[in-house]
Amino acid sequence: MSTLNNSTNIFWQECPVGKVERQKLLNQKGCVVWITGLSGSGKSTLACSLSRELHSKGKLSYILDGDNLRHGLNKDLGFKAEDRAENIRRVGEVAKLFADAGLICIASLISPYRKDRDACRAMLPEPNFIEVFMNMPLELCESRDAKGLYKLARAGKIKGFTGIDDPYERPLNCEIEIEQKDGVCPKPAALAGQVVSYLEDKGFLQVE
Amino acid sequence: MSTLNNSTNIFWQECPVGKVERQKLLNQKGCVVWITGLSGSGKSTLACSLSRELHSKGKLSYILDGDNLRHGLNKDLGFKAEDRAENIRRVGEVAKLFADAGLICIASLISPYRKDRDACRAMLPEPNFIEVFMNMPLELCESRDAKGLYKLARAGKIKGFTGIDDPYERPLNCEIEIEQKDGVCPKPAALAGQVVSYLEDKGFLQVE
Repeated sequence: MSTLNNSTNIFWQECPVGKVERQKLLNQKGCVVWITGLSGSGKSTLACSLSRELHSKGKLSYILDGDNLRHGLNKDLGFKAEDRAENIRRVGEVAKLFADAGLICIASLISPYRKDRDACRAMLPEPNFIEVFMNMPLELCESRDAKGLYKLARAGKIKGFTGIDDPYERPLNCEIEIEQKDGVCPKPAALAGQVVSYLEDKGFLQVE
Repeated sequence: MSTLNNSTNIFWQECPVGKVERQKLLNQKGCVVWITGLSGSGKSTLACSLSRELHSKGKLSYILDGDNLRHGLNKDLGFKAEDRAENIRRVGEVAKLFADAGLICIASLISPYRKDRDACRAMLPEPNFIEVFMNMPLELCESRDAKGLYKLARAGKIKGFTGIDDPYERPLNCEIEIEQKDGVCPKPAALAGQVVSYLEDKGFLQVE
């Protein structure tokens, strides 16, 4: 009997249809592709492109977008340090559920701190967490500024903005790093292709 | 630009692979089957049996079990009133994501208050929330007491236990009500069959 958080009485319910059966049905293996990087580094663009490439191969994926979840699951959270950590923790927990359901779950959020990302990594068996680092120069991200956020941050109207007055901690051991080539950003389809190749090589796109 | 909870700047990211495309891939429609009832009323048993029946038809489902989620996503929550409400809200939000992903999401939790269940219902388009009420007599649930919880509640060792010293509010307009027939509980497979028939009738098990 569990005595988890003042409780009492939480039992674990097992079920005869498990991850293995779902993976067979889908002919793929559940995993989490965690895309991290500065605002404007192209996380959402890659997430969408990856989702499209996978769909064209008959593979089921689902995008957990940090911003979108703040309208639902995480709408009770603000932007102070502990809320940001809790935001990422919840996305990690939900991503884990999607991977367990057999989907290729694409999480797309700045997730600036190594500690928070590594906590999400630790929720899954080692190979099933694939960290993709959008390693784009701040200047490039800021020059894009599609949402106008860098301008606000520079003007002091947003506090604690990653890259401006709050740090981004680069991954030390990510599975995939996306960079400019000769000062040019690869096209989204090419980037998605790079991730798809990784997933193929690691055997996520079929079951034995 | 959103000004949601002190924020700032949360944009909604749309993507070209949407619910419709995922549903076509799966040949089913995403929805939430929300199983509510007393502890020991057979919610988890029905959830498992339903998941098995759906799998045998090639349909992808995923169970969100209230107890299991308290080990992960909801491990920061206890059992006081606002934590219980938040527990159910989060399950509702995650169930909504799974339905959006195209899965038949089976949520299994006591969810004793009408208000909380109705809030989850309101997150989805009307037909996509299917409330299943395990309408079993308290005496039966208590006599089963597989987890020994009723005994603890009667002894005053658990406070606020649904059915003993905390109310269970029966659904007023659930889609499916499961009852004893002539004092006998239908077999799990028969109950699951009842839900599967409902899903078939309403067109959830195929796309046009």
